[in-house]
Amino acid sequence: MNGAQALLRTLVDGGVDVCFANPGTSEMHFVAALDAVPEMRAVLSLFEGTVTGAADGYARMADRPAATLLHLGPGMANGLANLHNARRAHTPIVNVIGDHARYHKGFDAPLESDIDALTGWLRGWTRTSKSPDELGADAVAAIAAARTAPGQVANLVLPADVSWADGGEPGTPADPPAPVPVDEDRIAEIAKVVRAGEPTVLLLGHGTTRDRGLVAASRIAAATGAKLFAETFPARIERGAGLPNVERLGYLAEQVQWQLTDVKHLVLVGAKAPVSFFAYPGKASELVPDGCQTHVLSVLGEDGTGALEHLADEVAAGVDPVRQEATRPALPSGPLTPQNWTEVIGALLPEGAIVSDEANTSGLMIPMTTAGAPRHDVLTLTGGAIGQGLPVALGAAVAAPDRPVVCLQADGSAMYTVSSLWTMAREGSDVTTVVLNNRAYAILRMELSRVGAEAAGPKANELLDLSGPDLDFVRMSEGMGVPATRATTAEELADQFGKALAEPGPHVIEAMVPPLL
Amino acid sequence: MNGAQALLRTLVDGGVDVCFANPGTSEMHFVAALDAVPEMRAVLSLFEGTVTGAADGYARMADRPAATLLHLGPGMANGLANLHNARRAHTPIVNVIGDHARYHKGFDAPLESDIDALTGWLRGWTRTSKSPDELGADAVAAIAAARTAPGQVANLVLPADVSWADGGEPGTPADPPAPVPVDEDRIAEIAKVVRAGEPTVLLLGHGTTRDRGLVAASRIAAATGAKLFAETFPARIERGAGLPNVERLGYLAEQVQWQLTDVKHLVLVGAKAPVSFFAYPGKASELVPDGCQTHVLSVLGEDGTGALEHLADEVAAGVDPVRQEATRPALPSGPLTPQNWTEVIGALLPEGAIVSDEANTSGLMIPMTTAGAPRHDVLTLTGGAIGQGLPVALGAAVAAPDRPVVCLQADGSAMYTVSSLWTMAREGSDVTTVVLNNRAYAILRMELSRVGAEAAGPKANELLDLSGPDLDFVRMSEGMGVPATRATTAEELADQFGKALAEPGPHVIEAMVPPLL
Repeated sequence: MNGAQALLRTLVDGGVDVCFANPGTSEMHFVAALDAVPEMRAVLSLFEGTVTGAADGYARMADRPAATLLHLGPGMANGLANLHNARRAHTPIVNVIGDHARYHKGFDAPLESDIDALTGWLRGWTRTSKSPDELGADAVAAIAAARTAPGQVANLVLPADVSWADGGEPGTPADPPAPVPVDEDRIAEIAKVVRAGEPTVLLLGHGTTRDRGLVAASRIAAATGAKLFAETFPARIERGAGLPNVERLGYLAEQVQWQLTDVKHLVLVGAKAPVSFFAYPGKASELVPDGCQTHVLSVLGEDGTGALEHLADEVAAGVDPVRQEATRPALPSGPLTPQNWTEVIGALLPEGAIVSDEANTSGLMIPMTTAGAPRHDVLTLTGGAIGQGLPVALGAAVAAPDRPVVCLQADGSAMYTVSSLWTMAREGSDVTTVVLNNRAYAILRMELSRVGAEAAGPKANELLDLSGPDLDFVRMSEGMGVPATRATTAEELADQFGKALAEPGPHVIEAMVPPLL
Repeated sequence: MNGAQALLRTLVDGGVDVCFANPGTSEMHFVAALDAVPEMRAVLSLFEGTVTGAADGYARMADRPAATLLHLGPGMANGLANLHNARRAHTPIVNVIGDHARYHKGFDAPLESDIDALTGWLRGWTRTSKSPDELGADAVAAIAAARTAPGQVANLVLPADVSWADGGEPGTPADPPAPVPVDEDRIAEIAKVVRAGEPTVLLLGHGTTRDRGLVAASRIAAATGAKLFAETFPARIERGAGLPNVERLGYLAEQVQWQLTDVKHLVLVGAKAPVSFFAYPGKASELVPDGCQTHVLSVLGEDGTGALEHLADEVAAGVDPVRQEATRPALPSGPLTPQNWTEVIGALLPEGAIVSDEANTSGLMIPMTTAGAPRHDVLTLTGGAIGQGLPVALGAAVAAPDRPVVCLQADGSAMYTVSSLWTMAREGSDVTTVVLNNRAYAILRMELSRVGAEAAGPKANELLDLSGPDLDFVRMSEGMGVPATRATTAEELADQFGKALAEPGPHVIEAMVPPLL
């Protein structure tokens, strides 16, 4: 057994049985070993940003890591932006980066680079394997590191000679770690805060925006009058009819300031105190209002959901959560607008959908119009590095092949990782992508004036304009093997969205939605 | 005048008057300042890999740097792979990376990251500007660093508050540095080597594969019997009828070993001693044959062309160079093959063409079939990070709008930065792209057996296969506003290539060429 075979065997034994891959020459023994370990499913992507984004989407839904396979430093570089998003999502990923044979590195061959600098940028955990007989143990350590709460990217650098040499020894993966409980004293302290009756917000962060956490938080809110918010960009939030509906903090500082008006106590549950996404001249970076005291129920890595349940038992015994009623918008009609397309989604979103949301400005109304739709999960752009929506949708579809995946995708961002569509076609992924084509970097038009650069002239505005030529997502999608249609009215969108959902496999609908501003 | 205006004014005064850009919120004051400095041309790309690759192609042809504009750490991350190629090409680039306002960085907002780790990976020169009144001087230093021989990427990190604050002071750029001459003693030593009459090779590296260097080297070869080779992947090589035709070292180690058989003296001219591109089990990394002595005429950063001319005057006074005769292949007929498509290019390549060559395995015969075509420049994949061909073609077209640009592009690699086509359409770039669609990562099929992994089974082979679904570059190109056609025979390719060259603006021809192996 060579090193690569031992690695794959260990990964599979550790529950890591999907590998998103874009290999090169230095990874050929890993590729060859796939046939020796049939339990490992390999999913080819045409660009590493899709590899890493798909691994992120996969783990958000599967609750266990996928592996990746990247080609040397430049392959890792191409995957970094979506690994940044995964880092912000605290997603477990076993990120396998092939490297030159160790004896070859000193020759500064064209693809040689300092991979440690890239893994250092990403933080997380990194190990370079030194020997085929240690590679199994290295993989065990990588899986454990990835799964260490709250989850992280574990980088395993795999020199080609370690991969190809005989003497591979599979490792024995440990069980996933148990949740780290929150100290009872802290729960008791927070119980006092929420019972005091002063204006209080519970801010739900990583891991606490799923069924159990939402229900417990809603009970606390119902019993004490505390308000609930979810963090702005949750890795995964469960919502829809039958679940408590928790509003997310806004993207714009002004929204957050409005949401937190007069709040005296902010209780963080696996969340960070809110800060402005960007800096703006003369505006504050910190968004906790003056006179508001910040408390911590749980920090990242602790069992925030357990803490919420414990706190609910303490302060809300016998109190029921407030559950969202089933309600959908009526199907709208007429030319598409930034509002009515979201009503179409809300009207038709199927039971059990997974929504990968990178609709950006076009999606402002989506949380409202889908609140009472059947139960669904929403995966958001956690790190702000655009080009995540399509890959995350792909990964979610691999993780949950029995659930419909809906990808709401802004046009500009779509172009970063558009070849994800090809992998969706190849894998037969049941993803319905709605591309919101407003022919602009609309968010930047808004930001241009928000940063105080109102004097911008024609050259500046041209840099925010995606027309001339217009992007035609129907042709691009068809060019990658995904059937596609174009909708310019709400009726067309409803018709096309319904048909796409009814058919298996990937579909793209290009929705010609005018810019919000 | 704010910082951004001072920066743009300084760049323009320093001869940097093109900026390839993909901005975000933190760069909005830079964008707004474009209207205040009309001499700066801004070229929008939809992905940072195109931004950086275009800046590389631009400077290879313009012999002066372009600027870039990237959005924070993730934007830089997306641009890294083509910056790696630019580093290997020793291309001068003023790489402007926007960052959060300095006071905002401590808040760990979603897009916060350690940009220095990324610039560290790239090496080169880096400075973070600290104040608008220093930004002009910082830009002067960045231009000087980029132009320091042999050329490099100079990273200028631009915090948003430095960009927006008043008090900007334009700097006064220095003249480009003079070439660094090679010591006369060294030239005299090499003169002895080449005169000795033993089997000798001159390996022409960075900066020496243009008209003057080729002519001088050819005179030396004609006078002494030395053989000439160019490095495997030159940033820019001039060739065609009327110029000395210098063969490049091969990509495969076996080719190089064959090319250097029985050579006793290897003279490096701005080149490194050849090493294998990848490591292979049981094969050598160093490719200089046993018993061959290595000599250095010039190191990177020295004036290798001047040294060659000096050496030629010494050893080849009165000797003429051997110039390539004008000769073209006959136009072939029949279904496309890995050979006959290159004959079409050779038969029709126009005078003064710039060829961006990322044809990979499909392009094996291109150097032979274009050798006697009219004079042209070839820009190659210097760092092995695929996805460079289209952006480099774009940048070259911006640098040399009066010359026809021909991009020879492998299918798999094309998908990395395919949105470059949109920018070509937007800019009206006269680029004729021939996509070699062999529906495979053909190079990896070859490498799979070369690395000794012959036992690869169906799962392995599936990872090297780009069919299912087939990529349709005609539709994709049209979707990005570039007219496109498909050729399956040599006659069709000749017809379409001729028409595309005759029309201004970008065109794509999808050539259905079967894999080499």
